[in-house]
Amino acid sequence: MARFAVALVHHPVLDREGGVVTTAITNIDVHDLARSSRTYGAEAFFITHPISAQRLLADRIRSHWVEGTGRRRIPDRADALELVRVVPDVATALETWVGGRDGAEVWTTAASPRGDITTFADARLRLGKSDRPRLILFGTGWGLAPELVESADVRLEPIAGTGGFNHLSVRAACAIALDRLFAR
Amino acid sequence: MARFAVALVHHPVLDREGGVVTTAITNIDVHDLARSSRTYGAEAFFITHPISAQRLLADRIRSHWVEGTGRRRIPDRADALELVRVVPDVATALETWVGGRDGAEVWTTAASPRGDITTFADARLRLGKSDRPRLILFGTGWGLAPELVESADVRLEPIAGTGGFNHLSVRAACAIALDRLFAR
Repeated sequence: MARFAVALVHHPVLDREGGVVTTAITNIDVHDLARSSRTYGAEAFFITHPISAQRLLADRIRSHWVEGTGRRRIPDRADALELVRVVPDVATALETWVGGRDGAEVWTTAASPRGDITTFADARLRLGKSDRPRLILFGTGWGLAPELVESADVRLEPIAGTGGFNHLSVRAACAIALDRLFAR
Repeated sequence: MARFAVALVHHPVLDREGGVVTTAITNIDVHDLARSSRTYGAEAFFITHPISAQRLLADRIRSHWVEGTGRRRIPDRADALELVRVVPDVATALETWVGGRDGAEVWTTAASPRGDITTFADARLRLGKSDRPRLILFGTGWGLAPELVESADVRLEPIAGTGGFNHLSVRAACAIALDRLFAR
């Protein structure tokens, strides 16, 4: 089975005008991406945020559901939120998960094509060829900043629907991307 | 191109103990399902709720983004939320959309198999065979009540991940289902 983890990036990401910003952590993103990550067999779901007060918030959401009254009320939610790891940046996510980037791959997702892109079909073939750990990045705001996209090993193609509209929520985009890559 | 609409059902749905309840409308569901519906070419996104104060809330969310300052700030969001139609129940959704159930089909989704189910692969074949309008129902809470599931023309298979965990959010489940059915 493919080894992978998901990371939701809050910095560096773009704003509507293309500037590099830091976004706030959204409670529902933590839940939805944890549930999707768990459904498709991710080893971890990293939330990256450079500000310690924001990391504390995400840690508290995790604790409430994994250790607190939330676990007793909805045990399935605990199974999902146990995947959450809160870290300052992508480098720390890789360090925490597999000891660093050596031997691992970073894959990016985006709503518009940037640089050489890989189709989901080709990405599935690549998954079958080696069991290297893959960290799949999803951007908040208006998407991952260029420095993350340019240094990636794989840039996944945008999710195309049936028309020109490509403004899925990150919750929907993550769900679809994991389904396309990992569904049996 | 396949003719379809999406409906997010707030009654009759199940609670954790299997009782039939009415759930509250969640702002983020309106946005996420509208965006996914628009991405895959839905003709409408119905929000069904039996309580008029809740329907008013959904109508206000729609108006803010379609006509108000929201449209100026994020025009793409207006394109998605224009699909929103707020109605009391599934029958009214069908009436509003295509004049009633005659000639249309109701498809249900669920996290666990109930009754005869149709795989996503078979459902795609069915879509190709006729251009009947299909209304695809998604349940809030713990899923659609039996009366909706039993009277459906098609009961789609649960979305299986890679393990036994099947607790996707309705936002993620809708995104994946539409992608499996309608992606080119």
